[in-house]
Amino acid sequence: MKQTERTNIENQHFVRTDPKKMIFFWFSLSFYMKGFGKVKDVELQKGERLDYLLAEEKMRIIQSPEVFAFSLDAVLLADFTYVPIKKGRILDLCTGNGVIPLLISRRSYAHITGVEIQERLYDMAVRNVELNGLSEQIDMVHGDLKEMHEMLGNGGFDLVTCNPPYFTTPQKKEQNINEYLTIARHEIYCTLEDVVKSCSRLVRPGGKVAMVHRPGRLVDLLALFRKYKIEPKKMRLVYPKANKEANILLIEGIRDGKPDLKILPPLYAFDEQDNYTKELEEILYGKEK
Amino acid sequence: MKQTERTNIENQHFVRTDPKKMIFFWFSLSFYMKGFGKVKDVELQKGERLDYLLAEEKMRIIQSPEVFAFSLDAVLLADFTYVPIKKGRILDLCTGNGVIPLLISRRSYAHITGVEIQERLYDMAVRNVELNGLSEQIDMVHGDLKEMHEMLGNGGFDLVTCNPPYFTTPQKKEQNINEYLTIARHEIYCTLEDVVKSCSRLVRPGGKVAMVHRPGRLVDLLALFRKYKIEPKKMRLVYPKANKEANILLIEGIRDGKPDLKILPPLYAFDEQDNYTKELEEILYGKEK
Repeated sequence: MKQTERTNIENQHFVRTDPKKMIFFWFSLSFYMKGFGKVKDVELQKGERLDYLLAEEKMRIIQSPEVFAFSLDAVLLADFTYVPIKKGRILDLCTGNGVIPLLISRRSYAHITGVEIQERLYDMAVRNVELNGLSEQIDMVHGDLKEMHEMLGNGGFDLVTCNPPYFTTPQKKEQNINEYLTIARHEIYCTLEDVVKSCSRLVRPGGKVAMVHRPGRLVDLLALFRKYKIEPKKMRLVYPKANKEANILLIEGIRDGKPDLKILPPLYAFDEQDNYTKELEEILYGKEK
Repeated sequence: MKQTERTNIENQHFVRTDPKKMIFFWFSLSFYMKGFGKVKDVELQKGERLDYLLAEEKMRIIQSPEVFAFSLDAVLLADFTYVPIKKGRILDLCTGNGVIPLLISRRSYAHITGVEIQERLYDMAVRNVELNGLSEQIDMVHGDLKEMHEMLGNGGFDLVTCNPPYFTTPQKKEQNINEYLTIARHEIYCTLEDVVKSCSRLVRPGGKVAMVHRPGRLVDLLALFRKYKIEPKKMRLVYPKANKEANILLIEGIRDGKPDLKILPPLYAFDEQDNYTKELEEILYGKEK
């Protein structure tokens, strides 16, 4: 029994997550049954809301705190990764509600495919593509990344991105409360090795693979990249603020590339006054024109 | 035919290397045949000079631009690494003129052994220990790190440090000009794998291994640490200045440790005005009292 509503946007408010607990982070846009008329009509299921996709005034995204809401990590990955601009094929694994394909579509004409194993999230991703009028550029696949090479072929993509589940084993308290979030955050349907193996199969020789993860898994990640012939070439570390340990890791490799890793300048999320740094603000809201 | 002089210190001048060429970096102390009487008499060979060991007003170090002069990297490694304070055994491989044992002796009572394969540098290291009156705490071994477990035993050290040769193959132009520098900088007598393997053999289970290297070798280094059961636990990246790529990599692992890498806040060497940052100044000259 799906409860749906036909809604439009009325007003908005921003929720800034406490920087210390900054895992899920979004810009909430409240909505009511009143008409406003700037965005397509959209069907929302119970618990879902329609949020602004950051700087993109013309883009909206359906999400739900109980099912899936995109994180800062996804926004940073979409900003960090190389993209083929004019043509090519891009794949986003563990796409969730499709946030990375949506963000990447802003700076590429390449065709983008998103893969999501959870039907409820896949459905959200499909509606997000439609909502933003991107059905010609983006398509969504409901399935298991471990089997994607059978459907999508080996070595067919110029770029594969992935914001995978971060945690190896679910904590008991989380395991029974919310299946959607448990699957999205924990290695239940796929291990990190499954993810890297799939990236390696799906990307073309010389193509790129970009991922976001926690610094604590850097050693695993680099070892798996090497094992599956993706040579790490570019890394960036994100620090919540100066004098804190890194909490987000961005990495890009080239299938069959030559060894030589560049470590880009660090990115700080917040300044001493707990405001966004100028650089993060530009990533989130775009550069001032 | 060694040309030696008996000298004392008279005056000093600091040479600040151009930050853009900051590979070899030292604080030069000119000296003459006049007596001044604050430091031990010391024998200097041709081309050698006596430098201040940075903040340590009581420490001096013999070095030579043609044979070996310590780099910023060694100073940063000595600052970065854990040291057992009250007791224990520390080993420094590829010790050169013994700069790391000298620096570490400032903050530890543990016994320190340095290993150097080049006789000319080993001789310099021995004189540096004597010069600073540290013969009871530090001893130097002339030999090949690949064979050190035969002499020093397996698993006998609480900490092994190493500032190894960085480059895999010598450039032709360097290869014939200066054998000392070629050996110190290139993997001629030992590969990175030899170094990590030796560290792993010599450190005790639960003991620490700390190294400095170039970011371009991070993937190799982490893979070798894992291969030889040294789990990377702490990493720090050094950037020449803001908005530049990292150029120095500091890493510490634990023999048989559990996986979980922490990435410490970045260290910047120079500020926007090309002055040392406060943090680097404190590492070099000590904190203001």
